[in-house]
Amino acid sequence: VITHRLGELAARVGGAVRGDAERPVQGIATLSAAGPDQLSFLTNAKYREAAARSRAGALLVPRGVTMAGRDLLLVDEPYLALAALLELYHPLESPPPGIHPTAVVDPTATIDATATVGPLAVVGAQSRIGPRAVLHPHAVVGARCRVGGGSILHPHSALYDGTVVGERCVVHAGVILGGDGFGYATHAGRHVKVPQVGRLVLEDDVEVGANSALDRALLEETRVGAGTKIDNLVMVAHNVKLGKSCLLVAQSGIAGSTQLGEGVVLAGQAGVAGHVRVGAGARVAAKSAVFKNVGEGEQVAGIPAIEAGHWRRQQALLGRLHEMQRRVRALEERLGVAPGGDKTEDKAPE
Amino acid sequence: VITHRLGELAARVGGAVRGDAERPVQGIATLSAAGPDQLSFLTNAKYREAAARSRAGALLVPRGVTMAGRDLLLVDEPYLALAALLELYHPLESPPPGIHPTAVVDPTATIDATATVGPLAVVGAQSRIGPRAVLHPHAVVGARCRVGGGSILHPHSALYDGTVVGERCVVHAGVILGGDGFGYATHAGRHVKVPQVGRLVLEDDVEVGANSALDRALLEETRVGAGTKIDNLVMVAHNVKLGKSCLLVAQSGIAGSTQLGEGVVLAGQAGVAGHVRVGAGARVAAKSAVFKNVGEGEQVAGIPAIEAGHWRRQQALLGRLHEMQRRVRALEERLGVAPGGDKTEDKAPE
Amino acid sequence: VITHRLGELAARVGGAVRGDAERPVQGIATLSAAGPDQLSFLTNAKYREAAARSRAGALLVPRGVTMAGRDLLLVDEPYLALAALLELYHPLESPPPGIHPTAVVDPTATIDATATVGPLAVVGAQSRIGPRAVLHPHAVVGARCRVGGGSILHPHSALYDGTVVGERCVVHAGVILGGDGFGYATHAGRHVKVPQVGRLVLEDDVEVGANSALDRALLEETRVGAGTKIDNLVMVAHNVKLGKSCLLVAQSGIAGSTQLGEGVVLAGQAGVAGHVRVGAGARVAAKSAVFKNVGEGEQVAGIPAIEAGHWRRQQALLGRLHEMQRRVRALEERLGVAPGGDKTEDKAPE
Repeated sequence: VITHRLGELAARVGGAVRGDAERPVQGIATLSAAGPDQLSFLTNAKYREAAARSRAGALLVPRGVTMAGRDLLLVDEPYLALAALLELYHPLESPPPGIHPTAVVDPTATIDATATVGPLAVVGAQSRIGPRAVLHPHAVVGARCRVGGGSILHPHSALYDGTVVGERCVVHAGVILGGDGFGYATHAGRHVKVPQVGRLVLEDDVEVGANSALDRALLEETRVGAGTKIDNLVMVAHNVKLGKSCLLVAQSGIAGSTQLGEGVVLAGQAGVAGHVRVGAGARVAAKSAVFKNVGEGEQVAGIPAIEAGHWRRQQALLGRLHEMQRRVRALEERLGVAPGGDKTEDKAPE
Repeated sequence: VITHRLGELAARVGGAVRGDAERPVQGIATLSAAGPDQLSFLTNAKYREAAARSRAGALLVPRGVTMAGRDLLLVDEPYLALAALLELYHPLESPPPGIHPTAVVDPTATIDATATVGPLAVVGAQSRIGPRAVLHPHAVVGARCRVGGGSILHPHSALYDGTVVGERCVVHAGVILGGDGFGYATHAGRHVKVPQVGRLVLEDDVEVGANSALDRALLEETRVGAGTKIDNLVMVAHNVKLGKSCLLVAQSGIAGSTQLGEGVVLAGQAGVAGHVRVGAGARVAAKSAVFKNVGEGEQVAGIPAIEAGHWRRQQALLGRLHEMQRRVRALEERLGVAPGGDKTEDKAPE
Repeated sequence: VITHRLGELAARVGGAVRGDAERPVQGIATLSAAGPDQLSFLTNAKYREAAARSRAGALLVPRGVTMAGRDLLLVDEPYLALAALLELYHPLESPPPGIHPTAVVDPTATIDATATVGPLAVVGAQSRIGPRAVLHPHAVVGARCRVGGGSILHPHSALYDGTVVGERCVVHAGVILGGDGFGYATHAGRHVKVPQVGRLVLEDDVEVGANSALDRALLEETRVGAGTKIDNLVMVAHNVKLGKSCLLVAQSGIAGSTQLGEGVVLAGQAGVAGHVRVGAGARVAAKSAVFKNVGEGEQVAGIPAIEAGHWRRQQALLGRLHEMQRRVRALEERLGVAPGGDKTEDKAPE
């Protein structure tokens, strides 16, 4: 068991203690699960009451919060502090460096002496694996790939030939990097494959969630900007350029040749059509579909996606269509006009 | 070839024969493919005519159905009986127990003597594999995992460290269990990873379809209730709690910390936002997006999802918007009011 | 470096040169990346200006295009010609035939002498691998499968028992073929698995993108027609029949027992419900959901999908709902009728 005094924790995250700085803390837990030996946290004001009821020994809270009789650790950004404290209590286990005897490494590959190549992993010809990189069991790296220092490839991930993974990237299990783009020339009803001869580049500090698939370019590069984080089951098509620090939430998808600026957020199950530009800082709502360019900082929603406020007003009006129909009917009656089509008004589309 | 008399089949499923109970049945086939040696089935009244035309030697039908000149096997629930009879004709092949010489099993792992660990499978430190469990080729079990008795892990499935799989679960090929949740603290435009230190628990009798991804919790547990069935390419985010006997159809997704009650159904490509509660027995229509709590037994549809009947009426009105516009125009003309904006009425959004 | 004269390239693709037929071409690149030694291409009129600015030594263009002072390669179908020329400059590397010593091949399997079974690949009992087929590292072929001549299975692909892959198919990394369909008989709230005892058949020249999942049939066959191309993360459920030369774009999905005619296109993230027929040549727009039969050659869009032109008009009217409400209000005022419900008109749905 790892134990730290509350005061030590505060020092580590640049926070302040209100209460007993000597209180020992043996771990971190949610408000409902935490016991007297643990620290819990309040990162969302709506859980204030749950915090008051919590049995947690101490609470990580935003500066300014007061809670009578509780030992508090006050910080500017509780969620950021939480990240640091979780790392403290759950240090990442690094597997020992070296190449497992069951791994299959091409003799022309270069594996840094501090890297780990796990059981049954494969590294192809002329590929280079950087310092402290970890290939978990069953990771497959094709030929002429580069995996940067400190990057982690989880089980069943695969890099097609020529894929580049930057430094400190995390490639989760089942992720496929650099597969062929979906490109065919259709001739007389037959789809002729257009060879996809470009590559995929992940810049540094990119994370890709389980079972996502990012394609190589037709020519040149598909590129994911530094610090971009991609959730599970996301699709990134050929020739796409993602800016730095984007967030692509689960099951979102981006069609070919589209460009996202820095810090763009695609919420869950959103989609962006091909050959479109989405400006820096733009946000696409969950389940929406972007079919045309989106400006910097814009927030869009809907299918097709429009300005988010506009979409919300449209939805509100949609909910009141029945009433509008009633009002039109009333006006018609008032004027003695024959009503238009009322007979089917409540009929569902199927 | 496995042969049973129709009467034996009836006895096995608690049904009754109308016709020749001695008729030999050598297998089960669809109405269009079945021949005189085979049993077919009528589980949906709309295939009644196809049943009449079928060359099947016998038909499994709901009690009460009559078909002149056909040998019938009458049961209360034909689909349930079909399940039992298919098992009879297609008994599951169990691979022989034992650890394949190419598997990589950590010396601290515990493998039950009746379990199978297939070619090139991996089992990490301190993991326990229960009786009659089957790890197919290339299944990867991390450290400190538990795989319950009778559970099956198909090729290329992966369990991250600490994942728990109950008894009699089926984990299909490419499924990733217990990957990191998508959690970042954004500070000055940079996304700092919040370590995901909880785990994922599948209770008993859960089935997960090919290439689905279920994440571990930030802290404590993501949990899938007993008997819940998950289709292919489904996403379950961190901290989610799924009740017992839910059905999550293909490509549906659930965002973080959401809770589903018992028996909830998400149809194909549906989504549920984070921090939402969906009551027991609720049903979410295909392609819908739930953004707020759904009550017990409610049926919802649309983006955002609303009560399904309401959604259908809205769709019907939407189909008649053009007519409503025409009526407003007619009223305006009647009153000599200048028409409002008719010039663009047929213009498409792009 | 591979070098060809522009005239040779023209001869190979049945085109004509305008300009210097002796110009050496060392490769193909996009308009912005190409240098004087390279050929670029103009397949979309909207890039005309970019073509004029390009530093490319020569341009592949549709017949009829003129560009002063540029060496042009004129063809009827530039995209088709591009496919042929890319193959010329990037010949597919075929790994040497033979079975890698780390592969696990059942003694009853039949591997053609010209086929390649890569490192750590698995081939089950009684399966047959055809001439020049390539199993990349970590491909898993179950028992009683057939992989046709010239087909390629990429890393971490898996074929469940009995799956048939035709000739010249490409199965990308992480693809799962022939997994169980999602079929349960629900009895007293419990979901009882209906054994899925059919199989999956890919006809010739099918390509399946990374991490897609295609299920076996309940009985008989799920079938993918010859020349059909499937993108990444696509779901095809049990009993589905896909015609020849369909295109299923990324993250689209098809529910059980649905049939698509020849040449159907599902755009990205589209869905088709179960037991539906989609006629030959029909096109389903991105993010749409088909719930009922679609006729031959129809173009549909929306959720539920309707005729695409109708959907576009509906969207246009939707964008003008606010105006219609204003007009109804004006009529009410004119007639001295109490307004209906204006107070909430700008309220968003949540």
